[in-house]
Amino acid sequence: MPHDLTPGELLYAGVQLTRPLLRNITTRVEADLAGTGVSVGQRAILEALRELGQATAPQITGRLDVKRQFVGREIKALLERGFVEAVANPDHRASRFYRLTPTSTRIIDGIRMREKEQFDAFASRFTREEIAAYCKIQSALNREMSARQGRTEHTAT
Amino acid sequence: MPHDLTPGELLYAGVQLTRPLLRNITTRVEADLAGTGVSVGQRAILEALRELGQATAPQITGRLDVKRQFVGREIKALLERGFVEAVANPDHRASRFYRLTPTSTRIIDGIRMREKEQFDAFASRFTREEIAAYCKIQSALNREMSARQGRTEHTAT
Repeated sequence: MPHDLTPGELLYAGVQLTRPLLRNITTRVEADLAGTGVSVGQRAILEALRELGQATAPQITGRLDVKRQFVGREIKALLERGFVEAVANPDHRASRFYRLTPTSTRIIDGIRMREKEQFDAFASRFTREEIAAYCKIQSALNREMSARQGRTEHTAT
Repeated sequence: MPHDLTPGELLYAGVQLTRPLLRNITTRVEADLAGTGVSVGQRAILEALRELGQATAPQITGRLDVKRQFVGREIKALLERGFVEAVANPDHRASRFYRLTPTSTRIIDGIRMREKEQFDAFASRFTREEIAAYCKIQSALNREMSARQGRTEHTAT
């Protein structure tokens, strides 16, 4: 990254990496899942259920910030493979909770443990301050980009 | 972002924002382009030509890290609207260079000027060190995620 950039230009250069980074992350997660029998999308659902304990399809959809159809399709596939089980929802007879099974708990625990080791190793290359700054700016960008939607500024045309 | 996380966990939390951030950026860029008659994809091509001066379709494809078909389709649309013009490539009679026209130069200059103002304003909320740390980690992540592809580590199964 060139060092003669203004702060705004430097930030812009970093933000421009968001698209290739997401593509590389997806390919990487896919490669790391080889042999587990779990797809990238299923991994995300299993991880969400691991954190939430149990959740309805709309709760998983909200958590993952993805399309409802995607969650419906993947939950169906996970149910068929015995990776997810449905439990009655006492509040809404029409909707069900989903939760991990012993098999999928073991699989997602293994996946997350490997990922955790990789992130710990990667994180050790940076100071706590650098990582905190990365997260601070990443969060602020996310808020800023979603907050301004609809309010376009055409000050310089 | 919780503060009781280990460096690896904090980093993971930040990286998990990559997908929603890209979606928010795309929606935001779309909103900011309203009234310009330029799509998000066309904006990317115009920006690339603004930086490269002139380029062949494969050069634009490589620069933007997108699909060849996408560039071909958008270049065609931009040619039809007079936003891009073709010039002969002395090295390869079969391939042509593309470059901006006066009209599209004015449009992309206006778009980039507005974006620059927004990034400068956003960047002013952080120290130079924080922005440098963000870019350093964002670049390192991108290299790390693409470098390890194919070499999966199943140390913890």
